Amino acid sequence: MTFEEQIQQKIDLKTKPLGALGYLEQLAFKIAKIQNTLTPQLKYPTQIVFAADHGLAQDGVSAYPPEVTFQMVLNFLQGGAAINVFCKQNNIAIKIVDAGVNFDFEDHPELIKAKAGYGTKSALREKAMTKEQLDFCFAESAKMVNLAFEKGSNIIGFGEMGIGNTSSASLIMASLLQKPIEECIGRGTGMNNEQLQHKTNILKQVMDFHGTITDPLEIMQTFGGFEVAQMCGAMLQAHKNNMLIMVDGFIATAAFAVAKAIEPTIIDRAIFCHVSDESGHRAFLESMNQKALLDLNLRVGEGTGCAIAYPIIQSAVNFLNEMASFESAGVSNK
Amino acid sequence: MTFEEQIQQKIDLKTKPLGALGYLEQLAFKIAKIQNTLTPQLKYPTQIVFAADHGLAQDGVSAYPPEVTFQMVLNFLQGGAAINVFCKQNNIAIKIVDAGVNFDFEDHPELIKAKAGYGTKSALREKAMTKEQLDFCFAESAKMVNLAFEKGSNIIGFGEMGIGNTSSASLIMASLLQKPIEECIGRGTGMNNEQLQHKTNILKQVMDFHGTITDPLEIMQTFGGFEVAQMCGAMLQAHKNNMLIMVDGFIATAAFAVAKAIEPTIIDRAIFCHVSDESGHRAFLESMNQKALLDLNLRVGEGTGCAIAYPIIQSAVNFLNEMASFESAGVSNK
Repeated sequence: MTFEEQIQQKIDLKTKPLGALGYLEQLAFKIAKIQNTLTPQLKYPTQIVFAADHGLAQDGVSAYPPEVTFQMVLNFLQGGAAINVFCKQNNIAIKIVDAGVNFDFEDHPELIKAKAGYGTKSALREKAMTKEQLDFCFAESAKMVNLAFEKGSNIIGFGEMGIGNTSSASLIMASLLQKPIEECIGRGTGMNNEQLQHKTNILKQVMDFHGTITDPLEIMQTFGGFEVAQMCGAMLQAHKNNMLIMVDGFIATAAFAVAKAIEPTIIDRAIFCHVSDESGHRAFLESMNQKALLDLNLRVGEGTGCAIAYPIIQSAVNFLNEMASFESAGVSNK
Repeated sequence: MTFEEQIQQKIDLKTKPLGALGYLEQLAFKIAKIQNTLTPQLKYPTQIVFAADHGLAQDGVSAYPPEVTFQMVLNFLQGGAAINVFCKQNNIAIKIVDAGVNFDFEDHPELIKAKAGYGTKSALREKAMTKEQLDFCFAESAKMVNLAFEKGSNIIGFGEMGIGNTSSASLIMASLLQKPIEECIGRGTGMNNEQLQHKTNILKQVMDFHGTITDPLEIMQTFGGFEVAQMCGAMLQAHKNNMLIMVDGFIATAAFAVAKAIEPTIIDRAIFCHVSDESGHRAFLESMNQKALLDLNLRVGEGTGCAIAYPIIQSAVNFLNEMASFESAGVSNK
């Protein structure tokens, strides 16, 4: 019997109708396979939230003013944001990263300083970041993931905060999937029709200015935020460390899609935690043949989908380890 | 400002885009309203699993033999079933009820004996239970809910185990919604096409035999299992106690729909935890304009959907109580 068959047999002999735990069974299979054991464990779940500012935010692509980025970082550090609440509830360690916020933060035990700049350049007029900045983002975020890994973490989620970053994600999606930008744009954190039209016009100009780009690293350099680039680098490192990667919403999926274009096997370690209310996210997931665990109309970002979904991932591991088999429980099988 | 407006204002002033916590916001609103406080709490979550046998199971409506009902009760008491694992994970108290299993159980601290009979009669030939048995089921299950309530529980979920009980739920659904029985039948815990055709033929005969029934209590008496009747009675009592009611899958929804036909305001206290893989469940939820928290292709029953969804309900309460407001965090609003 192959190891995959052994996992499936263990799942099938649990005291439940065949396949009746649905998506939890697929998840348990995936986790057992990644960890190469019939008794997988989730250890030291960790959430890293990357924050950065965006040149495009100056061009009116968001409903919120750019200073909300640094204000929200302070809120994260004070424990008042949604991601803090959900990580605390589910015993997930949290780290906040200044990946490139337009603000100088004081030291804080939960803040990692990895500033690639005081916000990206506007992709309307030039590439969002230099090649050196992109390399810096990948190197810094890999280090953070390694720190969590060295502490024993084998499951990690990534979140983001950056006013304007749904635009960055839309531009990445349109480039990677070669789709019209209109199909990749949503209302972000809450725009009216006029604002949405303005955002669409701006992003079309950005696409026209740069022309077709197909290299994933160049796509990230041109359209990425520093926080999106750091998420992408962090995911690639988590993959190298054989960690489970919890993928959050639209922006995290954009970062993941770039990582996947660089390293296709990363898909085997990914758990898509929720499908966001942001238009485009569902199509983005479908383009990778992925289904998300949750569909709760969330559109907060910050990695909230990962933190909320985490107990369900734990449930998948627990049923595999703790449920009785038909034989051990003396229950008749079909 | 009305109390409803105060709840909504508290939700809207949290440091997140307006509405961005999606379904969690609706849930937080509902819970605050039921508990009549801006700082709701979930206390002593409890899960009661009702088990009983079905006369119809002798007529080949299930893929599993009837003795699986009592075997699974023993499995529940030994802690080996899916519901045990998920309740343990999420600190949910669990009680198992012999509502009418065709087996004599020894005493056990987690077993409640409320046997209405050794299984129902086959609805192919007569009503499944007598009026006295129905009354007994409602009275006994109300007592169990009151016990949990007196211990301080304000949120309760209900599960079931009973080989043949998807047939009972299908018959109830068809009668309540006055839909063709074919639209209310699924594969239960795993049938092939031939078995499904047989089940459909049997249930058509049952419907023809009894003719149109519209009174909800008579529907329950005619088609209900003892466990379905006890779930229904338990839900009605939870409603009287102003407890939050976690509704599980297809069979729990059938029990709930009868309770709602008796007491329409019960819908205000219900949280639909998952939409099951069983055909008919989605349509059943839609008939009540309800959306479920989870869509994970579960079809185990036992209340597993409630136990897996519970942390998400806790997340809804936590964000309302613990997140900072724009003002307290010093974050700019739109």
